[in-house]
Amino acid sequence: MALLVQKFGGTSVGSVERIQNVARRCLAAQRAGNRVVVIVSAMSGETNRLLGLAHQITQVPEAREMDAIAATGEQVTAGLTALAICAEGGRARSLLGHQVRVLTDAAFTKARIKSIDHSRITAALADGEIAVVAGFQGVDAEGNITTLGRGGSDTSAVAIAAAIGADACEIFTDVDGVYTTDPNMCPSARKIGRISYEEMLELASLGAKVLQIRSVEIAMKYGVPVHVRSSFSEAPGTWVTREDKSLEEVVVAGVAYDKNDARVHLVGVADRPGVVAEVFAALAEANVGVDMIIQSAPNTASDGARADVTFTVSKTELARAKPIIDAVAQHVGASAVRYDEDIVKVSIVGLGMRSHAGVAAKMFQLLAGCGINIQAITTSEIKISCIVHAKYTELAVRTLHDGFGLHEAPAPASPQE
Amino acid sequence: MALLVQKFGGTSVGSVERIQNVARRCLAAQRAGNRVVVIVSAMSGETNRLLGLAHQITQVPEAREMDAIAATGEQVTAGLTALAICAEGGRARSLLGHQVRVLTDAAFTKARIKSIDHSRITAALADGEIAVVAGFQGVDAEGNITTLGRGGSDTSAVAIAAAIGADACEIFTDVDGVYTTDPNMCPSARKIGRISYEEMLELASLGAKVLQIRSVEIAMKYGVPVHVRSSFSEAPGTWVTREDKSLEEVVVAGVAYDKNDARVHLVGVADRPGVVAEVFAALAEANVGVDMIIQSAPNTASDGARADVTFTVSKTELARAKPIIDAVAQHVGASAVRYDEDIVKVSIVGLGMRSHAGVAAKMFQLLAGCGINIQAITTSEIKISCIVHAKYTELAVRTLHDGFGLHEAPAPASPQE
Repeated sequence: MALLVQKFGGTSVGSVERIQNVARRCLAAQRAGNRVVVIVSAMSGETNRLLGLAHQITQVPEAREMDAIAATGEQVTAGLTALAICAEGGRARSLLGHQVRVLTDAAFTKARIKSIDHSRITAALADGEIAVVAGFQGVDAEGNITTLGRGGSDTSAVAIAAAIGADACEIFTDVDGVYTTDPNMCPSARKIGRISYEEMLELASLGAKVLQIRSVEIAMKYGVPVHVRSSFSEAPGTWVTREDKSLEEVVVAGVAYDKNDARVHLVGVADRPGVVAEVFAALAEANVGVDMIIQSAPNTASDGARADVTFTVSKTELARAKPIIDAVAQHVGASAVRYDEDIVKVSIVGLGMRSHAGVAAKMFQLLAGCGINIQAITTSEIKISCIVHAKYTELAVRTLHDGFGLHEAPAPASPQE
Repeated sequence: MALLVQKFGGTSVGSVERIQNVARRCLAAQRAGNRVVVIVSAMSGETNRLLGLAHQITQVPEAREMDAIAATGEQVTAGLTALAICAEGGRARSLLGHQVRVLTDAAFTKARIKSIDHSRITAALADGEIAVVAGFQGVDAEGNITTLGRGGSDTSAVAIAAAIGADACEIFTDVDGVYTTDPNMCPSARKIGRISYEEMLELASLGAKVLQIRSVEIAMKYGVPVHVRSSFSEAPGTWVTREDKSLEEVVVAGVAYDKNDARVHLVGVADRPGVVAEVFAALAEANVGVDMIIQSAPNTASDGARADVTFTVSKTELARAKPIIDAVAQHVGASAVRYDEDIVKVSIVGLGMRSHAGVAAKMFQLLAGCGINIQAITTSEIKISCIVHAKYTELAVRTLHDGFGLHEAPAPASPQE
């Protein structure tokens, strides 16, 4: 008898029939002896419909009101799912963010969870009910409705799983697990059976889009085993868990790509302390997220040392960021600012990189081997990312995927290791 | 500078454009120097869409879940209206039932307001904001979302107006006021300029459908002046206020009809104390509302005194009520139970009846004069209702309306009275 959190995304609850399937699935888990908490997203399309209404009224809607509007999507699904479970002969009750209560900060549209009072969930479980919790939403200290950002229902699910000490958090989605890369981009992509939090974190943040990055952070922090699987089949999916000896044989676990960023290039910035900080402080103040940051070695010019600073920002935030960047660029004496939206970031991710030399060199060789010019590089302990022209996305992904042997089933770990 | 509550119904907020109109209207009221609280309904069609989803899942949905689902309609409108006010250069914030907080009992789908904590509304007003409150919804003592029943946004508006001591509660709707009868049924119907709470109560309960009956009760209890008017024009509508000397000249204020009831006839019920109570106790226990109740004088039969009991129940509740009625009828020894859904209740309403004799007689004569057979009659101090065959609805309404002179503008009250 386990304590299970089951999260169903928008596609999995996209129609009344699918909600009924979800209800049957939850009930089956309960009847198999488990205590079950269900987290639901808005029906697919619903959040966009709601935000579309708001955007018909104003292009810069008040974030507090956006959250009050958007949170209704999950509220409806939670109610319908509870009804469907009852209609199948089970017992269930819906719980909203302010009822649970999922306390967040007041950063509307991208709030972060501060604490979860799970007494109403555990009370429902003690009564033999399935607790159906509206994902994506919380409430700030003043009782305002907040939302956790796109994909926030994953975060809700993992945070609640952590709060109630669940044995596992099952993320039901429209794909059957985490793949070595995007199967639409690379036909030889394979489903991964087990992956570490760290690798998943890098894959998610780089656009693999199966799990919201913050949910993986929370899962890692609290050691919640996460099972990403299909809501349309019984087949096991991908387990995201603590690092495991058996994982170490794999050097590269997956190849990710991300077309959501634009590259900003500040040319000839004065190379003195505090200048770069000034640039990013201005962006941080405007709440513009910055991803890669690369500073070139300074070139000594006649009027003092100058450096180039390259960074990426989300394309969706670029319009808002441009005037800030232009102003600060002028202020720090940049000789030019260049923007390029026609880029893709391709990354390889794997815990095994830590102990295997030459992975970066191999990546660069593979890309060079098919004529792809690398515009920028960043590395972390378990990830190497290259920015290349967007037209090379498919070529780069396929080349790296098969070049690192991801098209083949991994060799089992040697017994002596 | 007045404190105004403005309530906009589903048709008035039925599209983004209409919500923008509402925003402009509220802002105009605020800019004219008033403090403004807006109460909004769900966009027209939205409540039915939501309940339709629930009914696709189950024909007997859990009431608690229905309320969680249905309340989202008003939540969305409140958020959109606040956005629209801000987009027009004003300042506004949405407030939900659990935020205000509108405390109700736990009678889901037809909850009653117990108290309103208006501190968040008054705080918003003190900040110079327009408070946009989601109508129709509240929260019970345990934090469950409740709704006030169909038309409950009127009740929200008047209750909030009473709680904050508003100078007036404006009910904006798709008609331009209260009419002497349904204009679709009787072309000579006229808009009433001013009507008493008591008359409005009888007209609303009898199907005039302009104002939810409970909202009028609350307005009467707390003396809230209510102004029913069109959201699509600036013309004054109908004021619903305390009884006024000038009203007394009018004997009959309006003619109402109601096709929503079915007639139940229990034949030959034992005429001893407690029997009738037993019948209605069984219905009350099942939460079936009963409207007219008529007990005939007992006929002494061989096996003791027998009486006929006739009452009406809502057609929508009849299916649920039938087994209860059949069982209790058998228990109290009724010789037969007859149901008739093909009826209409036609009523005349007016404070003036209290001091004018012969009004009932005139009503019966008017109906008889065009060959309409009366199946049952009930009277109150200011109302007389007749049940007739449904096919006579239009004939009865027109005959009574013009027969009591409602097609003519009322004579001004004599100065000496």
